[in-house]
Amino acid sequence: MATATSTELKHIKSLLTKKGRKEHGQFVAEGVRVLEEAYRHQAQPRAVYYSPALLSERGEGLAVVFSKRGIPVKEVSASRFQSVTDTTTSQGILAVFDTPARSLTKLYRPSYRKLLLCENIGDPGNLGTLIRSAAAFDFRLVCLIGACAEPYAPKVVRSSAGAIFAIAVVDSTDVEALALARSRSMRLVATDSTGMSDPTGLSDMVRESSVMMAVGSEAEGLSPGLLHAADLVVRLEHEATVDSLNAAVAGSILMKRIYDFTREAVT
Amino acid sequence: MATATSTELKHIKSLLTKKGRKEHGQFVAEGVRVLEEAYRHQAQPRAVYYSPALLSERGEGLAVVFSKRGIPVKEVSASRFQSVTDTTTSQGILAVFDTPARSLTKLYRPSYRKLLLCENIGDPGNLGTLIRSAAAFDFRLVCLIGACAEPYAPKVVRSSAGAIFAIAVVDSTDVEALALARSRSMRLVATDSTGMSDPTGLSDMVRESSVMMAVGSEAEGLSPGLLHAADLVVRLEHEATVDSLNAAVAGSILMKRIYDFTREAVT
Repeated sequence: MATATSTELKHIKSLLTKKGRKEHGQFVAEGVRVLEEAYRHQAQPRAVYYSPALLSERGEGLAVVFSKRGIPVKEVSASRFQSVTDTTTSQGILAVFDTPARSLTKLYRPSYRKLLLCENIGDPGNLGTLIRSAAAFDFRLVCLIGACAEPYAPKVVRSSAGAIFAIAVVDSTDVEALALARSRSMRLVATDSTGMSDPTGLSDMVRESSVMMAVGSEAEGLSPGLLHAADLVVRLEHEATVDSLNAAVAGSILMKRIYDFTREAVT
Repeated sequence: MATATSTELKHIKSLLTKKGRKEHGQFVAEGVRVLEEAYRHQAQPRAVYYSPALLSERGEGLAVVFSKRGIPVKEVSASRFQSVTDTTTSQGILAVFDTPARSLTKLYRPSYRKLLLCENIGDPGNLGTLIRSAAAFDFRLVCLIGACAEPYAPKVVRSSAGAIFAIAVVDSTDVEALALARSRSMRLVATDSTGMSDPTGLSDMVRESSVMMAVGSEAEGLSPGLLHAADLVVRLEHEATVDSLNAAVAGSILMKRIYDFTREAVT
């Protein structure tokens, strides 16, 4: 196996910063499980870097299959590997990917029946978890508006558990997203504390139409514009013991509900 | 207002480590929102520390109400405050609390109809989120078994959004938890990928009996002992696009479902 050069390691390190990711149009994904998902979803890394001293057997197998797919796989010493990762205990494998095109109009397909709209989801862990749940519940595209975390930041990639490789994630605006929903006759379903508890219309709506589901930040909720545009605003009932649900939890609960309704419709 | 001494600041800093928390039987909670929840749930801090230069108006109000409740409130300079917090951008307020008693048999009350059992939830963010959802969905006690994160670690307290002050969280063992469930005729409901999808028995079970709901780690799932003891194992159906759901999401979805069934039973 070839050994990574200092220039390559410097490049990887630069991708841990937002500036570096923007400049190079690339990002880093790290860890055995995340890269197994990348492999499974046919993502093509530019190169894979691993440190034999840190890597498990399962990780070694992964390096081998990437290599068989024609991807350059390069060795890094344990100490140098630690210097290019943002995790405290590294699993000894990472890969560099090109950041995919991220335009809503380019990535949207009319066959997509369920889309997720994230407004101001600033916490990287929450954004990654929402991307993961979206992929799990058959949502085909995640559209980010307002002040969301950067989807290819290391913590988002990690929290997505590799789902970032399975689903289109795009930056957009409320105007563009609402225009798409209108032009495609999608229904806009939102979750917000100001909504209706268990609205009866939800199951029919998601069975009959394509759906764009909106989730906002915990502190602020959804913006008035989106709430006003929504066909249905769903309040997820909970005890007053807590002020609100975690945004990723609220979004995931409603996505699961919509998923179950559409599954019932199929069977 | 009094000013915090160097000894006090050193003490706070020690509580950011597991060793320090254990040694002193105390922990630190930080941030306006978390401490508002602490106040609302009548938690009595030993002392509140704040830095006027960092604190918002809302935070200042909080310092005042704690002071009115007879809690010592002490001033810290901005630079010294930053040195005793584990957040990167501090909101300028924290408080020191005694760690509550954490024995299952001491804290369990027969009136508790819903308990959450967390097995090997090692990620602090997931544990905090599960505690928050448990409080939201009327679960009265969270029982930790196996290798869970430490519930009073700063990241768990923060992820709980203050719910840690609203609900009993105890360390226990599978043997003790199962013995309690048996002696109180609770039903053990688990979520695991090996379970049944949408089992019809769930709604009747949770309406008729007290419930202990078990959630395990993403990587390993629940231990064979717990799965074997479970009255019902629920599989949360999802696409094969992802390997599994986030543990906090899976646990929260099932808690919400159980909550909705028991709410329907009441109305």
